[in-house]
Amino acid sequence: MRTTLGWALTTTSRELQRVPLERRDLRDDDVAVRIDYCGVCHSDLHAIHGMVGKPMDGLVPGHEFTGTITAAGSAVTSLKVGERVAVGTLVDSCGVCDMCRLGQENFCREYPTSTYGGKDRLDGTITQGAYSREYVLREKFTYRLPDTLDPAGAAPLMCAGVTVWEPLRSNGIGPGSQVAVAGLGGLGHLGVKLAVALGAEVTVLSRSAEKTPDARALGASELLVTTDDAHLAKASGRFDLILDTIAGPHDLSPLFRLLGLEGTLSVLGYPREVPVNIMDLVFGRKKLSSSGTGGRKYTAELLTFAAEHGITADLELVPSGQVNEALARLEKGDVRYRFGLDLSDLD
Amino acid sequence: MRTTLGWALTTTSRELQRVPLERRDLRDDDVAVRIDYCGVCHSDLHAIHGMVGKPMDGLVPGHEFTGTITAAGSAVTSLKVGERVAVGTLVDSCGVCDMCRLGQENFCREYPTSTYGGKDRLDGTITQGAYSREYVLREKFTYRLPDTLDPAGAAPLMCAGVTVWEPLRSNGIGPGSQVAVAGLGGLGHLGVKLAVALGAEVTVLSRSAEKTPDARALGASELLVTTDDAHLAKASGRFDLILDTIAGPHDLSPLFRLLGLEGTLSVLGYPREVPVNIMDLVFGRKKLSSSGTGGRKYTAELLTFAAEHGITADLELVPSGQVNEALARLEKGDVRYRFGLDLSDLD
Repeated sequence: MRTTLGWALTTTSRELQRVPLERRDLRDDDVAVRIDYCGVCHSDLHAIHGMVGKPMDGLVPGHEFTGTITAAGSAVTSLKVGERVAVGTLVDSCGVCDMCRLGQENFCREYPTSTYGGKDRLDGTITQGAYSREYVLREKFTYRLPDTLDPAGAAPLMCAGVTVWEPLRSNGIGPGSQVAVAGLGGLGHLGVKLAVALGAEVTVLSRSAEKTPDARALGASELLVTTDDAHLAKASGRFDLILDTIAGPHDLSPLFRLLGLEGTLSVLGYPREVPVNIMDLVFGRKKLSSSGTGGRKYTAELLTFAAEHGITADLELVPSGQVNEALARLEKGDVRYRFGLDLSDLD
Repeated sequence: MRTTLGWALTTTSRELQRVPLERRDLRDDDVAVRIDYCGVCHSDLHAIHGMVGKPMDGLVPGHEFTGTITAAGSAVTSLKVGERVAVGTLVDSCGVCDMCRLGQENFCREYPTSTYGGKDRLDGTITQGAYSREYVLREKFTYRLPDTLDPAGAAPLMCAGVTVWEPLRSNGIGPGSQVAVAGLGGLGHLGVKLAVALGAEVTVLSRSAEKTPDARALGASELLVTTDDAHLAKASGRFDLILDTIAGPHDLSPLFRLLGLEGTLSVLGYPREVPVNIMDLVFGRKKLSSSGTGGRKYTAELLTFAAEHGITADLELVPSGQVNEALARLEKGDVRYRFGLDLSDLD
């Protein structure tokens, strides 16, 4: 086994603790990655707070990271020691089902293996995430990081980025499209940048006008204040797609009213039960959907697109020793727009 | 004014009463239709029971009918006295907005005028429906009934039919598509017939195996019993579209599990608030939608398609004097598959 360090959940406190970690010895098709940067995702908070099952004692979160290859198994062909790479929410899948063959490993019929809290398909151990200094995983789920992308800002592309990329692409967003982004956090700010780069006209929906300069700086043409009914009414029926990245429970009806014919409300920030008034769908043949956060196809495509357009996340980069402060601030929505952990303090 | 007879709601009883009715004198672009047959729609029950607003004293329901032109205004060009026609849920719209120009008058920005309970755009009177012997409406919303279609069975095409037609067409159903129909009533049986005629492989979802022969007779290849988890699991991820015509509140999660990649659950039978687990949408990038029940484009298209394929509703045809019994039986789901009223007893 290989040893490294990481930040693990202890169920006796809600704080993550610095702990020694083991990583498996490399299999033939494995690479070892020195983790340089890892984004702090809202779903890490869910895992820590037990919103998606009982919190696991000793669990190390983190599933959007960039780093450098330090070792490669004998069968690895596409990556070399010293190369920069990026890894997202998945580290394995069955590889043979129809979804895997489509590059939608995120929908693998046998369930994909999550980057943390998943079960390794060969030895059955629970996967440990990237709030740590090293990760060992299959070459197949390790993406070469394009040279032009800043590795810290690129880390959140691997979860937040692909989460908004998938609905943008599957809804055919491009020049002429009208896209709205509700909520301007980790997901939202990447949603704006990517939709703008795809050629769409982008509007930010926010509770106050305060973020108007930020929205414009990201490339949005307008910010609409959702608490101002008259302001909102002007945009009635306008959008082809709304990326709803609002984290807490909220009424979907005002958002549905903003959609045009066959428009889609993509709920990304609140993966729980929501009440939906079917009448909101009737008028305009509107759709409710979400995002699968991308398999290999969309993830690779996003990295290429991000490099072409120079898109990375806007980060508050902190040493990994400040992970607990970062999580506490994220919980209050106090971050602009994503926390990134610099793991070099674990050396 | 013109006088006729109809069946009107009285708020002192839940029974409809035979009452004299006035229809407007013909405007230049109006036709008068002698109503021969009118389908009994589940939404008529909603109107009577006040599920969609307070029941209106004196309201005459009925919004899927066929009949014969008895008079035509001076500007009417496409229809002649003696011709057979069909009318659905809408009798007017603004005619100039983008939705009207697309033939989606059902989504008119100024709201379309409903066949009953709507407000006439010129004189402001409340529209009265087709549980009556005569209707006067604009030529524009009056469709020529193809010669080959039985007028009684064709009446339900105008609401039930177009309600299922719209999601079938907007979801691109055709040869190779996998469609499921949950619930085998007025909407469901037309959903099966139309999807089969479009070339899809169709499966009926039902609480018991009892309706298997009926499902096959309508053209379905299979009936899956929804209370049998093992049976249902075999169809996991199979369908491109599920037409959910179940009338009462029900759990959508088992239906979402049956959808394949980017599959759509179209909820048609229960136009109220439903809880949706966003996680059901995540895995497979699935969509929730409904139906707008068709504007002129889809309605005209459906009549042509139904004539080509010889599709009408399977009716229990009763004299209009039995409307209260029909409504009571419909409420219990005791009809195979749609009640039709024969209005000739009002002469």
